[in-house]
Amino acid sequence: MADSDLVVPEGWDPGRGKAAQLNKRYSFEGYGQTRDFLDRVAELSEGEGYHPNISFGTTYVNITIDARNGERLEETDVAFALEIDRLYSEKG
Amino acid sequence: MADSDLVVPEGWDPGRGKAAQLNKRYSFEGYGQTRDFLDRVAELSEGEGYHPNISFGTTYVNITIDARNGERLEETDVAFALEIDRLYSEKG
Repeated sequence: MADSDLVVPEGWDPGRGKAAQLNKRYSFEGYGQTRDFLDRVAELSEGEGYHPNISFGTTYVNITIDARNGERLEETDVAFALEIDRLYSEKG
Repeated sequence: MADSDLVVPEGWDPGRGKAAQLNKRYSFEGYGQTRDFLDRVAELSEGEGYHPNISFGTTYVNITIDARNGERLEETDVAFALEIDRLYSEKG
């Protein structure tokens, strides 16, 4: 799915379907931490003008980034994934 | 799944699995409306101390309410679903 020279970031699953995407599940200690992370991801998404698909419950968040060009993962998709990792690393 | 005298609210799907739950998908015109709805649902959830499972993208939100007693849907689950419907009806 990815460009042959594109590295899937650690912990992200490119999926097995035809769609080029990156999936990752994040865990949290409580709802407050979860919501804070969701708010940060929303701000990032608004800044980028790209909104991933997100599912969440009290203490988890799943994020799916679809390849923006619809076919292959590109640098911009990977960079977005790494930004989300950065937000997670800053959780309280 | 539900108490025999409990009415599943309109548009909510009680699912087909063993788990007693209520599912509904809401659509929105744009991300701003989606995020506003998500924020309102978060406030409601915090007030109730109960957090449904939510998945969303740019213009949709899926909500799954699991029966709080783990077995059967009760008044409190249905009331929560109706509150979410009310928030949706107030969208901008």
